[in-house]
Amino acid sequence: MKLNCDMGESLGAWTMGNDAQIMPYIDMANIACGFHASDPDIMSDTVALAKQHGVSIGAHPGYADLQGFGRRSIFHTSAQITHLMLYQVGALQGICKLHHVNVDYIKPHGALYNDMMKDVELFKGVIEAAKQLQLPVMILATDNLDYLHIAQQANVPLIHEGFVDRRYTNDKQLAARTAKGAVIESLDDVKSQALSLIRGAMFNSIDNVSIQVEADTLCIHGDGGDALVFTQHLRKLIDEHAT
Amino acid sequence: MKLNCDMGESLGAWTMGNDAQIMPYIDMANIACGFHASDPDIMSDTVALAKQHGVSIGAHPGYADLQGFGRRSIFHTSAQITHLMLYQVGALQGICKLHHVNVDYIKPHGALYNDMMKDVELFKGVIEAAKQLQLPVMILATDNLDYLHIAQQANVPLIHEGFVDRRYTNDKQLAARTAKGAVIESLDDVKSQALSLIRGAMFNSIDNVSIQVEADTLCIHGDGGDALVFTQHLRKLIDEHAT
Amino acid sequence: MKLNCDMGESLGAWTMGNDAQIMPYIDMANIACGFHASDPDIMSDTVALAKQHGVSIGAHPGYADLQGFGRRSIFHTSAQITHLMLYQVGALQGICKLHHVNVDYIKPHGALYNDMMKDVELFKGVIEAAKQLQLPVMILATDNLDYLHIAQQANVPLIHEGFVDRRYTNDKQLAARTAKGAVIESLDDVKSQALSLIRGAMFNSIDNVSIQVEADTLCIHGDGGDALVFTQHLRKLIDEHAT
Amino acid sequence: MKLNCDMGESLGAWTMGNDAQIMPYIDMANIACGFHASDPDIMSDTVALAKQHGVSIGAHPGYADLQGFGRRSIFHTSAQITHLMLYQVGALQGICKLHHVNVDYIKPHGALYNDMMKDVELFKGVIEAAKQLQLPVMILATDNLDYLHIAQQANVPLIHEGFVDRRYTNDKQLAARTAKGAVIESLDDVKSQALSLIRGAMFNSIDNVSIQVEADTLCIHGDGGDALVFTQHLRKLIDEHAT
Repeated sequence: MKLNCDMGESLGAWTMGNDAQIMPYIDMANIACGFHASDPDIMSDTVALAKQHGVSIGAHPGYADLQGFGRRSIFHTSAQITHLMLYQVGALQGICKLHHVNVDYIKPHGALYNDMMKDVELFKGVIEAAKQLQLPVMILATDNLDYLHIAQQANVPLIHEGFVDRRYTNDKQLAARTAKGAVIESLDDVKSQALSLIRGAMFNSIDNVSIQVEADTLCIHGDGGDALVFTQHLRKLIDEHAT
Repeated sequence: MKLNCDMGESLGAWTMGNDAQIMPYIDMANIACGFHASDPDIMSDTVALAKQHGVSIGAHPGYADLQGFGRRSIFHTSAQITHLMLYQVGALQGICKLHHVNVDYIKPHGALYNDMMKDVELFKGVIEAAKQLQLPVMILATDNLDYLHIAQQANVPLIHEGFVDRRYTNDKQLAARTAKGAVIESLDDVKSQALSLIRGAMFNSIDNVSIQVEADTLCIHGDGGDALVFTQHLRKLIDEHAT
Repeated sequence: MKLNCDMGESLGAWTMGNDAQIMPYIDMANIACGFHASDPDIMSDTVALAKQHGVSIGAHPGYADLQGFGRRSIFHTSAQITHLMLYQVGALQGICKLHHVNVDYIKPHGALYNDMMKDVELFKGVIEAAKQLQLPVMILATDNLDYLHIAQQANVPLIHEGFVDRRYTNDKQLAARTAKGAVIESLDDVKSQALSLIRGAMFNSIDNVSIQVEADTLCIHGDGGDALVFTQHLRKLIDEHAT
Repeated sequence: MKLNCDMGESLGAWTMGNDAQIMPYIDMANIACGFHASDPDIMSDTVALAKQHGVSIGAHPGYADLQGFGRRSIFHTSAQITHLMLYQVGALQGICKLHHVNVDYIKPHGALYNDMMKDVELFKGVIEAAKQLQLPVMILATDNLDYLHIAQQANVPLIHEGFVDRRYTNDKQLAARTAKGAVIESLDDVKSQALSLIRGAMFNSIDNVSIQVEADTLCIHGDGGDALVFTQHLRKLIDEHAT
């Protein structure tokens, strides 16, 4: 079980997150690629930081929307999604050459991530980019056979991601943030859901139905006052169950 | 002697140039990378067009300035230039993967090109990016030993470019556009300077001093009413002197 | 009956439309405000051109999306729509001060226009901006009482717009562009629908149901090869029926 | 003597400065207008905050350069500067209408401010915009007769600004940040220079020459760990010498 976190979300003079503090505790850094956040200088700094801590580098492409931080859907055809992804992942690969490291995987960001999980045509656009780049794609852990099949046909490995601070619906989607109780705030509850995900055990959906989510990696959030403490707890939890 | 031309300079719904008409006559396409012009969709279309005509693909990175079309200088440190270049060239390489072709060289655009020729620190930034990408760089044909040395030390081949529609100063720089007679408008004069460049022969600077410019490629401009006719003439001229 | 047309949709070095040719034939110029097209210099040129021909100036604000030309929806709350509009209309008012003319009305652009007609909350956001600016708003001619009521309560006059080159649905919406026959291409058919709109007469919807649309102004499109000819025909038609 | 501070420099999800903490202590808020920082939503929030504390609202337009935060020069003609200013000030005036307040003055930002003080043609461009908007312009306190004359001819009042945390050159320009000692870091030294500016008294330039700067307002910086404490001290200093 790996810990992944969005990194490199600053922009020019604006700082976001606590990358230097969080990086030592994670396994995979999802690095923003300049469309929803970041710029070439910050990308280079973030790649250097990931390399320093031996953290795997993922490209984190998003919609071109700085004001909305990539959290607002913008219509793209499937082919346009492929171009959008190839551009941004390629850009990060260019930056990585300076540091003699590689991009190891792709995780779409924000609304692009959500849209991909809802619209199979957009998912196909993502997979087409990943196929050409020969890189795995991190998605919301799913047993949707269509999705699994599309990735398999393209020889694109999927990395299944679980969330520890969000409640799931009965069909293993994330409950909408606006739903009551959708965001898990107590550290104990976060740790409890994390433990279930680590062990592959059943846990309760937001509607108190017992579900099981098979995840390869847990997503944490690097900003917010408690981010560092949460991250350290999750790191400890994973390390304790590593065997 | 190769013919190179800026290509893929449209943006979203805005069209620039006559790429489909010009592409069949050139050897090298300098493809805009989204900062001064273009977007991921247009980059993909342009790469496809170059591939169709067997034209070599160059990355044409520029300053982030859509309104100014990359023609206005924006201060960057040498390291920032490296990041700017790696980002944009990497992005085009990503798009190229979809078409199973490669980026063959880099030609900085507009103010970035001019600034690089004037400020050796910026040139070093360009060369550092090219070194990491293992790609040649097209520059204004020069016998400046500093520049040649910097490229050689980095094992970065230089492609020397000559201009057929611009007068040169005595020291083989381009005369400022604003200088009287700086832009060569008559087709006969363009062909005459082109012939000198093709043959490596002497020709007159803007001050009527005899100079010699050793060029590997001639730059043509793809927009303007006469662009196609000019291009066809230059293609013919080069082909006639190919042996 | 007035003729309105989108104007000032160029951007930096990119040209769109034939503003200088079309402007003499129209009554109202919807001037882009820099978010989906245009820039401060082009806005100033366009305002000067409108003033020269005595054409009424409208602000044409859109979503912040140059690549998509404002044709893609981007989520905004009602309050955000108000801010987006106030910013862009205010910007055009600033430019107008240089030419000692005023912005006379507001017409939202592209996806913002469509979204406003579909989502009454967004329409409220538009009306709130117009109320503060004390300007009328041009909308798709409607007899939707909710819309009429909201505008009336805010003391915002509505300018009802009819389309001459698009078929309507039975409920007086524009048929989706993708629907067969949605775009009227024959000049005779355009003139026929225009005549009905000018006279307030019945005409056929896309489903051949007889409808009536009461419009204050007809929208024409300034780009495309036939734009000038279409515009001249419509100008003539309106002038002939002016009395 | 007034205290002015740059405000509203956040952007979308990125926060900059401590506006809510600083606003109660200042007289004049220079509000960013979306080109180097801010967006329509943040502009509205910032105007509301200024209104709440009875703080005078200034437009703070800058070059279109988010990554560089408007701190990098971008070439504009004098006329382009006028357009750039009218656009941004007009935009803020639009936002202000929602809150029933006015823009009271203009202070160019960053590189635009510096360029205006160095290049009289750009200053003329600024003054032309201010003339059309009938607003005063805040500039670096100067006794340059050319500048005073240009503003006077246009009937544009100037607001002379002094700096308390930067050393001056002998000719009353700000010493370059890179010069040794250019930035005054000790609170006592800041207060000492502030006191001289408040009293119109002589103080030492960076080269220890005695100079006098006649200022209407003192500029403070709202970010940085000590910003609030500095601000409170300066507020107190001004209030104590108010009579």
